[in-house]
Amino acid sequence: MTFFALDSRLERDTIEVAESPLSLLRLFNDERYFWVVLVPKVAGAVEWFDLPETHQKALMDEALSCGRVLGAQPNTLKVNLGALGNVVRQLHVHIIGRNETDPAWPGPVWGHSPAVPMSAQRQSERIQALKNSALGLRFSFTGI
Amino acid sequence: MTFFALDSRLERDTIEVAESPLSLLRLFNDERYFWVVLVPKVAGAVEWFDLPETHQKALMDEALSCGRVLGAQPNTLKVNLGALGNVVRQLHVHIIGRNETDPAWPGPVWGHSPAVPMSAQRQSERIQALKNSALGLRFSFTGI
Repeated sequence: MTFFALDSRLERDTIEVAESPLSLLRLFNDERYFWVVLVPKVAGAVEWFDLPETHQKALMDEALSCGRVLGAQPNTLKVNLGALGNVVRQLHVHIIGRNETDPAWPGPVWGHSPAVPMSAQRQSERIQALKNSALGLRFSFTGI
Repeated sequence: MTFFALDSRLERDTIEVAESPLSLLRLFNDERYFWVVLVPKVAGAVEWFDLPETHQKALMDEALSCGRVLGAQPNTLKVNLGALGNVVRQLHVHIIGRNETDPAWPGPVWGHSPAVPMSAQRQSERIQALKNSALGLRFSFTGI
């Protein structure tokens, strides 16, 4: 039997924020983007379409709920959603708030440039925005 | 009242393949990647999370069905799924089969390099692969 363990690169690049029955919700440690990642706690999961059907749908609901929160931020022009997994194979979904002044615009953020770690204030603001949204109903916010 | 019309850039970059009650299924005209795009025929749609809930789920089902087809191709190592919309605002979902020998690997394909138009044979092979899959049950294959 295999247990779920968060990939070490995701662990390094992101900060623990919350947890649903299905997923970990983590914040990318990058000042420049309001960028969250969902990681279903399913050992060995790689492709979204290989999840059991109920998990497929729950993950979409979670991703779109995150999208709605990021889309409601005053400086979000467009939400980007992506599940790539070319570098980190463990299934994870990116949801990112974008605008024309961000450094990668209009290209994708992945692989663009090294992260700029968040200030404590930015981190706190972002976590509060997530916590004060409808995500609070389905996620437990941990350690905050 | 506004009617749906395919964005002109999507029209230029992709080839008509099939249609479901919700979406157009189009093939990116790029020899180097087996890359499809789904465009819901919903006038003015920009963000996935702003679609009516039944359309949200149907679009996910379609995207994951495409993912399953691309994932089953012998030269697909990883499927990439993305809804960005920074350049073309009309809601569209990319599903791309990737492998370590493709030119953008392991980075994202978007913005990497100009497309290389498909040979007629490649185009026909890809369309047949889509048509002979479970997508045949939900999509009508047009003009082929």
